[in-house]
Amino acid sequence: MRTQVAIIGSGPSGLLLGQLLADAGVDTIILERATKDYVLGRIRAGVLEEGMADMLDEAGAGARMRREGLPHDGFDLTFSGRHHRIDLHALTGKRVVVYGQTEVTRDLMDRREATGGVTIYEAQNVQPHDFDGASPYVTYDKDGVTHRIDCDFIAGCDGFHGPSRKAVEGKGLQTFERVYPFGWLGIVAEVPPVSHELIYCNHPRGFALCSMRSNTRSRYYVQCALDEKVEEWSDDRFWDEIRRRLPAETAEAVTTGPSIEKSIAPLRSFVAEPMRFGRLFLVGDAAHIVPPTGAKGLNLAASDVRYLFDGLRDYYADKSDSGINAYSERALRRVWKAERFSWWMTNTMHRFPDAGPFGQRMQEAELDYLSGSIAAQTSLAENYVGLPY
Amino acid sequence: MRTQVAIIGSGPSGLLLGQLLADAGVDTIILERATKDYVLGRIRAGVLEEGMADMLDEAGAGARMRREGLPHDGFDLTFSGRHHRIDLHALTGKRVVVYGQTEVTRDLMDRREATGGVTIYEAQNVQPHDFDGASPYVTYDKDGVTHRIDCDFIAGCDGFHGPSRKAVEGKGLQTFERVYPFGWLGIVAEVPPVSHELIYCNHPRGFALCSMRSNTRSRYYVQCALDEKVEEWSDDRFWDEIRRRLPAETAEAVTTGPSIEKSIAPLRSFVAEPMRFGRLFLVGDAAHIVPPTGAKGLNLAASDVRYLFDGLRDYYADKSDSGINAYSERALRRVWKAERFSWWMTNTMHRFPDAGPFGQRMQEAELDYLSGSIAAQTSLAENYVGLPY
Repeated sequence: MRTQVAIIGSGPSGLLLGQLLADAGVDTIILERATKDYVLGRIRAGVLEEGMADMLDEAGAGARMRREGLPHDGFDLTFSGRHHRIDLHALTGKRVVVYGQTEVTRDLMDRREATGGVTIYEAQNVQPHDFDGASPYVTYDKDGVTHRIDCDFIAGCDGFHGPSRKAVEGKGLQTFERVYPFGWLGIVAEVPPVSHELIYCNHPRGFALCSMRSNTRSRYYVQCALDEKVEEWSDDRFWDEIRRRLPAETAEAVTTGPSIEKSIAPLRSFVAEPMRFGRLFLVGDAAHIVPPTGAKGLNLAASDVRYLFDGLRDYYADKSDSGINAYSERALRRVWKAERFSWWMTNTMHRFPDAGPFGQRMQEAELDYLSGSIAAQTSLAENYVGLPY
Repeated sequence: MRTQVAIIGSGPSGLLLGQLLADAGVDTIILERATKDYVLGRIRAGVLEEGMADMLDEAGAGARMRREGLPHDGFDLTFSGRHHRIDLHALTGKRVVVYGQTEVTRDLMDRREATGGVTIYEAQNVQPHDFDGASPYVTYDKDGVTHRIDCDFIAGCDGFHGPSRKAVEGKGLQTFERVYPFGWLGIVAEVPPVSHELIYCNHPRGFALCSMRSNTRSRYYVQCALDEKVEEWSDDRFWDEIRRRLPAETAEAVTTGPSIEKSIAPLRSFVAEPMRFGRLFLVGDAAHIVPPTGAKGLNLAASDVRYLFDGLRDYYADKSDSGINAYSERALRRVWKAERFSWWMTNTMHRFPDAGPFGQRMQEAELDYLSGSIAAQTSLAENYVGLPY
């Protein structure tokens, strides 16, 4: 088999890149380790920057997002028992769209199928080869047979645990990491959200987040210790805990109900450099992870796709190497800024067991300053809605 | 002896408070452990916020500062070998005045003498008493005799090592501290400054600062390890080191010359709470220390004086307790924000031996973001020129 760009991974970044390339007349094959249903069953974040929402439109996959997504003009921070609204639209002229990552994936899959794009599911042992030279190829196993796809380029959209980054270890790959001393215990419930906007809550008992997937499906999180077990958290215990962390009038307004999903996730910052190795590009979670505070993960994958698509389009349309040559540097510059923002927002909103009394007061002073400074709020807001590409 | 307000310490905060009170018809005595010449020999920072400069005018001691002080509209940050100007005036409508703390002290002393204010120098073993009750007094030794001053209030303007904070230990005093893993090696030289504005420099070899006292007297600093000895730093070694940390064209422009002062100072953040104990008030360094990055120490002492003077004036003029009752809370709220800013600017501009690769990249991302964001620059600038009282 032969294609122009072999894409490893059928998450949102692989699908978005594939669709933009297809619409530009570039041939792609997507290789996905799991089944389609498995991919669609993964529950992830869903706060889209305007830049990403525009890219979904550009890929012809934005119609349902525009119809069903919830545009948010702001969000609340709570601390010291009070709400402080960050008015994203007033501060930046932009807004975000709440629309689940699963829905983004579904819309992009539908669009890919409608436009005849090829995705090979259940491709085992996917492996990129010879990307240092001019003739890279990808191998994978399916139905007991090893297959080979020759290509011009390989896009590693295969997430943190995928084969692409592993293939470049020892080839000049540098990694940077921060593991946070807590996790997020999250639930999904078929109840209306407590507020029509997100609430990020700093409380002496720990961080909490009130979020939603829709007007009838809520997503709630509480900061927990890393050694907690999901089984120890009954729904009742969870609802009691999140209400304890919210300002009183907000806590009273929470509609509770049985959880339909409950899990604990660790928080990590991670960056791999560079993001290009010859004809192999690392994209999204394959190259970087952010803690979920501030909802940058999916959006950062989209900005990688922006830079890579622009580079590949120029390569095929204009025989220009400059875009793909600049990919790693352009992508990483934005990645590091989003890493900084996610790290800052994590530091500012969580309770750290090792903060010490002075560190804790620095956090409180940061929030007090933020609540009174338009400049500081604008800085937060411009990062939250997404820095320019 | 009897006075209305006994002031311990003849530094800028004690003198400024004393002068404002005197001009409002409130009687004060200042007790100073050292001689007048010793006080005037101490070399300290000298970047005045507009609010502090206005208070010197208000105290009738601003004329020379307005004539000889250097108004600065901005300063430079350097990192990655390049200059990035922070245009304070364009971003905030305000500027700062470079005018040595020694000169502030001298002008306030002159004004105090001209208006007949009493300062007792070489007052040993100064001790506040009975400030929990309605009849506080201060004792001190001079010429082999113990003296007593009865008063309504005691203002502890006696610095980090003075007797006032020691007198409230065990009386509900809480302290918060951060000691930084490096110091500042600073010199004064009779050479013109390399730039007419300050340059704060982040370099792999460590922080550096190009500052000045006047157009003919320069003040330079380099970050150094805590175990360095001044004797190990010849003038030549110092000049070589600071030039290494500056962008090339700036390094070439440095005018060197023999140092007339050279010393190493540790960096510390410290806050004591509360700042009022009955009829004793802690003011300035007696209650809080900031690292010098951002030049907040003197200005923070001035804002304490602002709140305390307003409270005492209202007490004597209007028999109102509300200002002195609010003193600790009002002062501390601004103190913590200035502590946060000084901590942030210290974190952002120095190299930390324990930062780790991810932490170092966070610092670089912060600077990269700052250099491209008007909102972030405005936040920095509004803190640098001084948050509103």
